[in-house]
Amino acid sequence: MPIDTRHPREIRQDIRNGKLTGITAGLGQNYVQANLAVLPKDQAYDFLLFCQRNPRPCPLLEVTDVGSPEPVGVAPGADLRTDIPRYRIYKDGVLADEVTDATPYWRDDLVAFLLGCSFTFEWALLDAGIRLWHVEQGKNVAMWRTSTQCRPAGVFHGPMVVSMRPIAAAQLAKAVTASARFPGAHGAPVHVGDPAAIGITDIARPDWGDSQEFARGDVPVFWACGVTPQAVALASRPPFMITHSPGHMFITDLPNSALSAI
Amino acid sequence: MPIDTRHPREIRQDIRNGKLTGITAGLGQNYVQANLAVLPKDQAYDFLLFCQRNPRPCPLLEVTDVGSPEPVGVAPGADLRTDIPRYRIYKDGVLADEVTDATPYWRDDLVAFLLGCSFTFEWALLDAGIRLWHVEQGKNVAMWRTSTQCRPAGVFHGPMVVSMRPIAAAQLAKAVTASARFPGAHGAPVHVGDPAAIGITDIARPDWGDSQEFARGDVPVFWACGVTPQAVALASRPPFMITHSPGHMFITDLPNSALSAI
Repeated sequence: MPIDTRHPREIRQDIRNGKLTGITAGLGQNYVQANLAVLPKDQAYDFLLFCQRNPRPCPLLEVTDVGSPEPVGVAPGADLRTDIPRYRIYKDGVLADEVTDATPYWRDDLVAFLLGCSFTFEWALLDAGIRLWHVEQGKNVAMWRTSTQCRPAGVFHGPMVVSMRPIAAAQLAKAVTASARFPGAHGAPVHVGDPAAIGITDIARPDWGDSQEFARGDVPVFWACGVTPQAVALASRPPFMITHSPGHMFITDLPNSALSAI
Repeated sequence: MPIDTRHPREIRQDIRNGKLTGITAGLGQNYVQANLAVLPKDQAYDFLLFCQRNPRPCPLLEVTDVGSPEPVGVAPGADLRTDIPRYRIYKDGVLADEVTDATPYWRDDLVAFLLGCSFTFEWALLDAGIRLWHVEQGKNVAMWRTSTQCRPAGVFHGPMVVSMRPIAAAQLAKAVTASARFPGAHGAPVHVGDPAAIGITDIARPDWGDSQEFARGDVPVFWACGVTPQAVALASRPPFMITHSPGHMFITDLPNSALSAI
């Protein structure tokens, strides 16, 4: 995977100018990437409360002022309408458009939410010497809807989505402590071991992403997944919503280490 | 200090029945106590956003559904109108009443916020073998308004308030790591050392609480303080607000250890 080590400001400039239009993996090495969810103010209180009540799947990094596309807390000067390579536009919960510039869809009543993403804790796992099969193979992680219900908030409710990575038994404790340091990027695993305990019937058939290969002694480890808030928001069929397109994240000015709780 | 080791449910029952009306220090040993702020729904979005943007002074533990006095996440079955020993009622930002039962003041449009409190990280410090002068002397901590502005949200803005504890230089690192594990109770110190760096001109004269004594080699250590959200909310002169009375906290069903990030 090619690595672009420039500062996020320069990378976002290329995205804004249409020079970079692909997925953001490998861009802005060691900087926090974020999921985007944009909702009208009418839905913003319930969504903010949903995130507060479900911090593992929904680790909030930034909420913009109503109508402002600038995430002043994590990337001052950036513009969330143009600085993401690809957006999805939803109307009444249905995909209506996919664009590289969301400016024509921006409105004065919109609030943008940026949520931490698994790239940060995967960086922490790799940094701790833990091997990740899907990274070595260039695949996606495996993701499932679970039988664990999120705590509802107003119009938003639904199951927690998890991602799964096979971890060598000898590296299990390290995987827990290394990811636990990053509550802003889903934190510690929500479950270790038996998939059936959280309602997953077939570990070989994920709901999203790629099936993972287990080496002898590997244990399935499940982390809360950033797909949760988008899935929950869309399930409520909000009249209008903007998200990033899968893999096309917002690159913040925060180094991954800035999210460390300790 | 007498210690009441019963389960918080039993203690809250005594509070509800008027048998316990004093401060809550020493009640429900090792259970999380919380600050209360109740605001009408009209102000709730801005206050929720303010807490999200300022997690060190405003560590949110619970936000109730509009009109509901039950904190289902941290103490199912409890009633926030009756289960706190003493309440303050504010109208237009001015203290209007102090009561032991807030039921007559409850309204269908109110949202209750519970915020983590320093008791939890002081427990962590003591547990780590750190001596706290104010605990040994039965005094209050020292608190100041700082020159550090909170990140504003809607109508809410103001300076961060900190509490200060003198810590022996040899215990400094331990004090940082022990409290950092509890982001839900203000987390790591926001400043260590020179008071002037955060706008405190006289370390012997706190804005609230008691002046602290320094032993030879003690360093002043500053943590974000739960006085911040109440001070900020009242400064905006909301038409109506309920808080706990100082020292008269809500006792949750969460053991302190439940707030540990790692």
